[in-house]
Amino acid sequence: MAQNSNGKIQVAVLGASGYSGAEALRLLLSHPHVRIQALTADRKAGAPIGEVFPQLDGYGLPMLQRIEELDWDQIDTVFCALPHGTTQDVVAALPDKVKVVDLSADFRLRDIDAYATWYGHPHRAPDLQEQAVYGLTEFARTAIANTRLVACPGCYPTSALLPLLPVLEKKVIRTDDVIIDSKSGVSGAGRALKEGSLYAEVAEGIHAYGIASHRHGPEIEQELSGAAGLAMTVTFTPHLMPMNRGILSTIYVKLADGADVEDLRAALAERYADEPFVRLLPQGQAPQTRHVRGSNNASIGIFADRAPGRAMLICAIDNLVKGAAGQAVQNFNVLHGLPETTGLSLAPMFP
Amino acid sequence: MAQNSNGKIQVAVLGASGYSGAEALRLLLSHPHVRIQALTADRKAGAPIGEVFPQLDGYGLPMLQRIEELDWDQIDTVFCALPHGTTQDVVAALPDKVKVVDLSADFRLRDIDAYATWYGHPHRAPDLQEQAVYGLTEFARTAIANTRLVACPGCYPTSALLPLLPVLEKKVIRTDDVIIDSKSGVSGAGRALKEGSLYAEVAEGIHAYGIASHRHGPEIEQELSGAAGLAMTVTFTPHLMPMNRGILSTIYVKLADGADVEDLRAALAERYADEPFVRLLPQGQAPQTRHVRGSNNASIGIFADRAPGRAMLICAIDNLVKGAAGQAVQNFNVLHGLPETTGLSLAPMFP
Amino acid sequence: MAQNSNGKIQVAVLGASGYSGAEALRLLLSHPHVRIQALTADRKAGAPIGEVFPQLDGYGLPMLQRIEELDWDQIDTVFCALPHGTTQDVVAALPDKVKVVDLSADFRLRDIDAYATWYGHPHRAPDLQEQAVYGLTEFARTAIANTRLVACPGCYPTSALLPLLPVLEKKVIRTDDVIIDSKSGVSGAGRALKEGSLYAEVAEGIHAYGIASHRHGPEIEQELSGAAGLAMTVTFTPHLMPMNRGILSTIYVKLADGADVEDLRAALAERYADEPFVRLLPQGQAPQTRHVRGSNNASIGIFADRAPGRAMLICAIDNLVKGAAGQAVQNFNVLHGLPETTGLSLAPMFP
Amino acid sequence: MAQNSNGKIQVAVLGASGYSGAEALRLLLSHPHVRIQALTADRKAGAPIGEVFPQLDGYGLPMLQRIEELDWDQIDTVFCALPHGTTQDVVAALPDKVKVVDLSADFRLRDIDAYATWYGHPHRAPDLQEQAVYGLTEFARTAIANTRLVACPGCYPTSALLPLLPVLEKKVIRTDDVIIDSKSGVSGAGRALKEGSLYAEVAEGIHAYGIASHRHGPEIEQELSGAAGLAMTVTFTPHLMPMNRGILSTIYVKLADGADVEDLRAALAERYADEPFVRLLPQGQAPQTRHVRGSNNASIGIFADRAPGRAMLICAIDNLVKGAAGQAVQNFNVLHGLPETTGLSLAPMFP
Repeated sequence: MAQNSNGKIQVAVLGASGYSGAEALRLLLSHPHVRIQALTADRKAGAPIGEVFPQLDGYGLPMLQRIEELDWDQIDTVFCALPHGTTQDVVAALPDKVKVVDLSADFRLRDIDAYATWYGHPHRAPDLQEQAVYGLTEFARTAIANTRLVACPGCYPTSALLPLLPVLEKKVIRTDDVIIDSKSGVSGAGRALKEGSLYAEVAEGIHAYGIASHRHGPEIEQELSGAAGLAMTVTFTPHLMPMNRGILSTIYVKLADGADVEDLRAALAERYADEPFVRLLPQGQAPQTRHVRGSNNASIGIFADRAPGRAMLICAIDNLVKGAAGQAVQNFNVLHGLPETTGLSLAPMFP
Repeated sequence: MAQNSNGKIQVAVLGASGYSGAEALRLLLSHPHVRIQALTADRKAGAPIGEVFPQLDGYGLPMLQRIEELDWDQIDTVFCALPHGTTQDVVAALPDKVKVVDLSADFRLRDIDAYATWYGHPHRAPDLQEQAVYGLTEFARTAIANTRLVACPGCYPTSALLPLLPVLEKKVIRTDDVIIDSKSGVSGAGRALKEGSLYAEVAEGIHAYGIASHRHGPEIEQELSGAAGLAMTVTFTPHLMPMNRGILSTIYVKLADGADVEDLRAALAERYADEPFVRLLPQGQAPQTRHVRGSNNASIGIFADRAPGRAMLICAIDNLVKGAAGQAVQNFNVLHGLPETTGLSLAPMFP
Repeated sequence: MAQNSNGKIQVAVLGASGYSGAEALRLLLSHPHVRIQALTADRKAGAPIGEVFPQLDGYGLPMLQRIEELDWDQIDTVFCALPHGTTQDVVAALPDKVKVVDLSADFRLRDIDAYATWYGHPHRAPDLQEQAVYGLTEFARTAIANTRLVACPGCYPTSALLPLLPVLEKKVIRTDDVIIDSKSGVSGAGRALKEGSLYAEVAEGIHAYGIASHRHGPEIEQELSGAAGLAMTVTFTPHLMPMNRGILSTIYVKLADGADVEDLRAALAERYADEPFVRLLPQGQAPQTRHVRGSNNASIGIFADRAPGRAMLICAIDNLVKGAAGQAVQNFNVLHGLPETTGLSLAPMFP
Repeated sequence: MAQNSNGKIQVAVLGASGYSGAEALRLLLSHPHVRIQALTADRKAGAPIGEVFPQLDGYGLPMLQRIEELDWDQIDTVFCALPHGTTQDVVAALPDKVKVVDLSADFRLRDIDAYATWYGHPHRAPDLQEQAVYGLTEFARTAIANTRLVACPGCYPTSALLPLLPVLEKKVIRTDDVIIDSKSGVSGAGRALKEGSLYAEVAEGIHAYGIASHRHGPEIEQELSGAAGLAMTVTFTPHLMPMNRGILSTIYVKLADGADVEDLRAALAERYADEPFVRLLPQGQAPQTRHVRGSNNASIGIFADRAPGRAMLICAIDNLVKGAAGQAVQNFNVLHGLPETTGLSLAPMFP
């Protein structure tokens, strides 16, 4: 077992030069049972991490390497924060003993035909896909504990599934009328050079994108359909707005016959009563992304509508934490039988 | 007729120390047929406008006064940018010959009982309310030309009504399933000192507010119901986000039986073919608030949904221009028989 | 003379796909004596401008072309908003009758050896350089009126020279102790894809860059030295901060023997008494970039220091207007004998 | 000794409804030896902290109380995050056995006449002032360990003193020519309702304030003078810019006769070689506030100037952490003989 002499779990972060990789490092640096053994970043191999992310200088982190250079004997678990489409080949080449917490989209869609449709190429590791567990932690603990490969949910799906799954399980909303209007900060787009990510193209404005065509749509539907027991199609509109971090999903639902908004509240309250990271807000209080910033928390608000038979569920997360690196650490803890909050108890940073 | 020797229309701006008052001044300074004769700001009376708004220093504007000090012989038209609830008394006290372009909410709701319910006190000028024309210019030109009192629409209603009215008139959407998810910049909250308007409470985050309880809900419903010919209730959720200006409304609609998304496009294209300020974007292009910033333009995008029978209409305006002072100037032009674009041809400012 | 049948001056904007090119278009659209005849953007040739800048759609602008495609018979004056280093070849190839308002740095440094040192290659049109006039309008009117080629000052130099030149001319400050601490919005870096221009790398932070090595340093020194009558070296530190537009230069000076801060005020007041765009703020009022946003205004504040013999001059401009496209239009007006404020009377946009 | 049965130090935070109080709570929640026993907020007494700061809900913190309600038997140490001017009375009334870490300005100026001049009223607890230690931790450890009352430095002074004290101690700069140009985020102004703190008055702009009159000027001078061994007057200009957190101080110095910029680097490198929170950046790398965000780190860069005999020191801190609550916790650790980094090892949060 790849633990060093201090009994720490030895970890590599693949793709440490992106925002979600860096966020994983920020969190893992506070994790009492982790030793960060290796970092990779192909184009920056040989450089110290501080050259890529000055905020991570001075914490004794290893130099950036190429994946090929890693000594797998020294590594127990990898956090994969690689670009979509590249992870499947990397994971396929890993020694079997290495556990994988994947932050990419490569193993999220169970249906490899759907994968091919939405990602534009046939899946290259279908057998691995079969082993992968969709790691929305609160709904997959047992499976995660028994797998080697966790596919961490996308940021938008996390913000949509947390409020929706319990009310679908309890059948208190209709399955044919779910509208998810999501607003995201820019870090979700990563550090890639795109005109649309420039400050001047993002600041002081908002717009929708990927309308009726975003890849997180089928991911959301896969999980909702599983909870509902029937194939669901939802409306999902992501928006890009001027903030570094955060996703707010405002979800419009129709109540099932005979249900009212208190049934929604009851379903969520029951489901999340003992969850450390999911918080139901008091009646009338609206979630704000800034109040979960930097933390693994998800805040959920429930609101009756004036339009009869309608209600709103609103969920706020930090897209880089509960929507990416934080949930990855949470899954890592489950994988290793650690208390789920280990390394994740940081309070949100506001302002 | 209150025109000075140059044939200019003499204008007073009441409430010049707020953001919409200042925006009216910015626009009126470029208006070739206007002379800004007087400015009021009760608490700042006696000060130059540059003390309240340094950006307006140096343009030869009059000193701030109290309303009581104005010489109405010198004034033909007032722009009222006073707080909600205070305008009705002010307008009631004006000489009949003075035309009024009101930016407040005081005269928007035709039903004074609805006014009392939503604004918390009986209307104090019900007779004036009867004369008032709801000034969504593109839909009210004749009435505006024949009145003395124009109630300019709220910012959210403007962004919702422009895309929705034509498709309701053409009966290509259902009336029982309209969801308006709106995102607004902060200037909509005005310059009042509220904790929720502080930079640190707004920057780097988003939240919904006034959920199912915002006063613009009944205003939207009033106008939609008129177009639909039946009483409509809609879902309306405003959000506050970190930008100075702009509203984006993402509107989820159900298509009427037999209609498809091209019918929506056709209805909007026909209705706005000759409108100078309303622009239908090419298929696939999403409106961005930053691309209308500072202008009186409204951009509308139309999108088919993956969910069958559903579509999205997205509208972007500058809340201070088309959503307030710009539409006010547009209405002023109609009131005075001027070309509607007079003083409003400024291109948007981006970035 | 290339004026069309309406007596308008026919203009081409070269490099219309960058921010300063777009800003020139925004301003020129309001210019009563200009007809925008052609736009170029090499990589986007054949596309409508609205594809590159959606905010400019709907104003009847010509399609984007390659420079080689232009019909010079139809063009009287070009605004060059091309990348540094590429302009000199373009201008050298133009017909002599075409006047040039250049927004690049190519013709700003009179000393072609200094140019070679700071820009990394020998100047390729030294004869043109000799004709070029450094176009800080307030200080170069006569020369501009008599040239064919105006080199518009850089954004930082504009913000530094406006407050410094008059006090140097009056010899009320020392020449050996001038420190310019400048803070700029992001649009100054243009629309090029650079990691440092990404939203997440700019928002919520500030840093200095180009410390003691920015190319605007020698440009500032060239002009200061001219005014002082001796070679000056200054300290100049630019900072990048999260805003779209604006430069604030805080300038620390030592008073000349016998001079006091009132002498600074007098020098500036006298020099700018009749200038339409340069505004001295009342004592104690600090310039804010947001109060000049979108306008061609420059605000200057003058402050005594607690440290004896020291004072501060603070200047705010919009880097895209007075620091680029606005000053270009101002110079265009001088070139063509038009009133200098033509097309430039827009009030600032705040908030 | 007020430690509970778990051996934890029992702490009260006075003024928990302000930003620095909340930041102290964020940090103390991660402190392994602290039990947060009481919170006060006069106007919000009786409310849960989550009502004032939703991000702090769910962490088991005590209800807000009035100071008068506290049971001092249960409290060992207070963090005072009260408004300036109110702390001296509060501290004077505390039992002697309670240690005080004060984040206000009340005990920073040793000279009570200077206090009266700059704060507008006579000091009301001059005897306590004599006991107070100015807690720039890196320069005051022994004194802090032996006092009961630590006056934590202001945010601006922290950013100025860290780079300047070592070079003054080593006499490698001149004492008569120090210029500090500081840029701060908005949280430094606190949560008070001021027009100047509104989002629309801060976003997308920058301005200087408190020019030659900010209260942190004399505080900086007090400490610099101590290090230099003579009375120093410096130039200090703070600027307000659109970010929540962070201060960048760009400091212009003149080298002492015979000294060069490498002497500055050597002085700082020697002084901070073993400091956990102060980091000298590699040559050529400029500090960015975003790279220290949320951490107790201070980054310092050293740059030669082109102007002969001049250099720049640039320092970045998070104003709420090293500039306030973080340094307070650091001082708390010293007060209690704990390792200084206890509870402060969080890596910065970027983006």
